[in-house]
Amino acid sequence: MSTPLEDAMDTLIKIFHHYSGKEGDRYKLSKGELKELFASKLTNFLSGQKDPLLVDKIMEDLDSNKDNEVDFNEFVILVAALIVACNDFFEKQLKKEGF
Amino acid sequence: MSTPLEDAMDTLIKIFHHYSGKEGDRYKLSKGELKELFASKLTNFLSGQKDPLLVDKIMEDLDSNKDNEVDFNEFVILVAALIVACNDFFEKQLKKEGF
Repeated sequence: MSTPLEDAMDTLIKIFHHYSGKEGDRYKLSKGELKELFASKLTNFLSGQKDPLLVDKIMEDLDSNKDNEVDFNEFVILVAALIVACNDFFEKQLKKEGF
Repeated sequence: MSTPLEDAMDTLIKIFHHYSGKEGDRYKLSKGELKELFASKLTNFLSGQKDPLLVDKIMEDLDSNKDNEVDFNEFVILVAALIVACNDFFEKQLKKEGF
């Protein structure tokens, strides 16, 4: 049986390929696929976000090789950055509460 | 309700703090805590691994600021590297099967 950490890693891989396989290169996310992934899978996370250009900006930042698509390694860097941001917030809260 | 991707991100944060809080700096993993996390949470992933010095080697690689502890950012880099390795294997299999 797999552990929760292994399941979490597996989830990331599955979600990426679910969206990347929709159109064009099936191993890369186009801007449309990235937008769809964000809207469906980071719903709560991005619910406070009102910037209509957010996905364009993220795409530009992530797409280090400038091919207008996001490969898996670029996607993991984005998710890692989001997790670190969440954790910073979480640790600040804990420290505020005296832990 | 949270999405599976948000749950996966949450899992990573919770697991880190469950182990980092056991001894010493509660926001960092000591070598003992890292060993325990690996043994309990990456059981299947590391089941083929027989190198008794594996954790020591990973600790040395991860601990970029040489304080003999792994902070959350260093931990996320490790997990990201593991996920990328898993995904490389997964994509190779898919390509072999003609996808």
